[in-house]
Amino acid sequence: MKVPVAAVALLLFPLFAYAQARKEAATPKMNAIEPALTREDVRKVSSALDRYTQDRVMGDLWKRPDLSRRDRSIVTLAALIARSQTGEMPYYLSVALDNGVKPGEISEIITHLAFYSGWPNAMSAVAVTKNVFRRRGVRSDQLPPAAAELLPLNEAAETQRAARVQQDFGTVAPGVVQYTADVLFRDLWLRPVLAPRDRSLVTVSALIAAGQVAQIPYHLNRAMDNGLTKAQASELLTHLAFYAGWPNVFSALPMAKGVFEGRPR
Amino acid sequence: MKVPVAAVALLLFPLFAYAQARKEAATPKMNAIEPALTREDVRKVSSALDRYTQDRVMGDLWKRPDLSRRDRSIVTLAALIARSQTGEMPYYLSVALDNGVKPGEISEIITHLAFYSGWPNAMSAVAVTKNVFRRRGVRSDQLPPAAAELLPLNEAAETQRAARVQQDFGTVAPGVVQYTADVLFRDLWLRPVLAPRDRSLVTVSALIAAGQVAQIPYHLNRAMDNGLTKAQASELLTHLAFYAGWPNVFSALPMAKGVFEGRPR
Amino acid sequence: MKVPVAAVALLLFPLFAYAQARKEAATPKMNAIEPALTREDVRKVSSALDRYTQDRVMGDLWKRPDLSRRDRSIVTLAALIARSQTGEMPYYLSVALDNGVKPGEISEIITHLAFYSGWPNAMSAVAVTKNVFRRRGVRSDQLPPAAAELLPLNEAAETQRAARVQQDFGTVAPGVVQYTADVLFRDLWLRPVLAPRDRSLVTVSALIAAGQVAQIPYHLNRAMDNGLTKAQASELLTHLAFYAGWPNVFSALPMAKGVFEGRPR
Repeated sequence: MKVPVAAVALLLFPLFAYAQARKEAATPKMNAIEPALTREDVRKVSSALDRYTQDRVMGDLWKRPDLSRRDRSIVTLAALIARSQTGEMPYYLSVALDNGVKPGEISEIITHLAFYSGWPNAMSAVAVTKNVFRRRGVRSDQLPPAAAELLPLNEAAETQRAARVQQDFGTVAPGVVQYTADVLFRDLWLRPVLAPRDRSLVTVSALIAAGQVAQIPYHLNRAMDNGLTKAQASELLTHLAFYAGWPNVFSALPMAKGVFEGRPR
Repeated sequence: MKVPVAAVALLLFPLFAYAQARKEAATPKMNAIEPALTREDVRKVSSALDRYTQDRVMGDLWKRPDLSRRDRSIVTLAALIARSQTGEMPYYLSVALDNGVKPGEISEIITHLAFYSGWPNAMSAVAVTKNVFRRRGVRSDQLPPAAAELLPLNEAAETQRAARVQQDFGTVAPGVVQYTADVLFRDLWLRPVLAPRDRSLVTVSALIAAGQVAQIPYHLNRAMDNGLTKAQASELLTHLAFYAGWPNVFSALPMAKGVFEGRPR
Repeated sequence: MKVPVAAVALLLFPLFAYAQARKEAATPKMNAIEPALTREDVRKVSSALDRYTQDRVMGDLWKRPDLSRRDRSIVTLAALIARSQTGEMPYYLSVALDNGVKPGEISEIITHLAFYSGWPNAMSAVAVTKNVFRRRGVRSDQLPPAAAELLPLNEAAETQRAARVQQDFGTVAPGVVQYTADVLFRDLWLRPVLAPRDRSLVTVSALIAAGQVAQIPYHLNRAMDNGLTKAQASELLTHLAFYAGWPNVFSALPMAKGVFEGRPR
């Protein structure tokens, strides 16, 4: 993986780098999005929080192996959107672009989470992202079209899934059951610009970040069917401990354990 | 139900209608509240999200039978308040007024959710609603008084409820138990401007939207005792899939199933 | 406990007092932070909500015995930070300072909740708190240093805790397990400016407010080991009914009951 030197510096010391960038004249080639808070702001309230941010989060967590910086950016964005935390979004959208997440992928992540976190969450993300895209010079031809040729469907697996949901809840909420098949699994999940493995990464991250424990087993299994490795899933949990809080991760751990143990080796 | 033509147009194509309205001079007779985001804003980030919004949400979900547009407006507001999502609130408050939710009912919904979602959620809703009320010309005499003659209490049912809670938690949190009886069930729920069936609609929507699964069975049963039909409850779940995300609804489905199956036909 | 008369007046009728204060010229000696909403704002939407706020919350809840006003301030701040509800934060930060919560304790509460609610929650709180600290004249020498001599560790208890977590989840998420020991229990919890009992108060409040039911038993037991009494825990639940909503508290009640019954008398 080739990464420009500037991007690496940005990644390793993002808050510092941005604070520096702010002092310089506007640099059109970079168009960096500043974090909502400078290190100085954080230190005015808590020097310890600044230290943990530098030493543990930026200086350690983001450098851990088994989950790439691109994937960590996707996990972080999914957690922020799932919890409607817009304050940090501009900065982490910018970090995501620097780490190789394509604008079209960000577009699809937001659309995906309209369904998995709720329409208002997606709209909040749109309000922030449109400004980031403008400042970063993202052009409309870099974004996916409204309708596109879909990826091929695993018809057998989808038929089986739909039959189980129909049996469980077909008479409880036929509308939910129908939209789940027609709009989610026969449309959204098959849109080509965000790979199924990445859609799963987004979905599982959003579930853990929002504390939706009961839905983790199905989607973590699906994620691993889609290519997410156990080592990556394990690091996803570690990453979210910082970005969605320890309790959400500790509530997810028994689910992850069950999924890991239930799969053939 | 007679609905003015303008209101229908507004309902069917709300984002479009508002975008159009914005171009025109301020129209005092309408005082429309614009959505936080225009369709153009959404398309700058995701054409697919715009397409799903138009085709699936505005063009399909809101037109489904079994739950009126008025009820869908109440469900949507409850979800937004329960999750403190203020960005979309002005627009959906305006839509609610257009769909026949009375200003006094909105006032009571916010007060009700102070208790069921938390005081800060209600205060965030107040901050938005006071501006919408002003712009829509809502007068103070359209709003309920602080104290009013209460609806009659079902003394037998309340005594039974209170006894059960006292037995379960009377020594754990006597304060909670006492406020629940005195302030919630012998006061708030009996305020006359919002019907008990609508209070239940608000409560159940807030519970599902906030992922408070354990409290669904009691309140969904209460809602059906208060007149919510199974078909309406089913559509409430369908509506919230879009406005609070699929996972919250899938976690609620087993609870709804249990309630539906446990009731006499 | 000696409390200045002005502070008591402020506590008993905070919204009123602040609304009054606003009318007067800026009073540098007070530097009061106004609530986001005046009583008049609330009444423009709901006179009933204003009445409940005055009669039940300010006039009753905050005066109840068994949990001090200082502790109620900590519980309220923890709930607001756990749910990223920044609108009410300036006011309740100011109330906390008036009720004797030290600036250094607020600094540590925010840092503590970076781990227990998530980094973005802490950053939102920093954005608000830095302004409140400035307006209240908090000096940097009143805040804890980034690193400090730690409180002594109960090595036996921590070894036991770590062994259990290692056994349960050591192969599921080794990163989580290691950070939990190294950063949380051998560092964060031992920072001296916020007492372990108060860290527990913050943690349990955040868990209940965020609906993280499964993590309550461990942390409520730990809180009581750290000196939180049953009467205080009971009032914490009562206080959070208003500030985090009834459903979160009702979901926590069975957990609290189990903890209370499981402890030696």
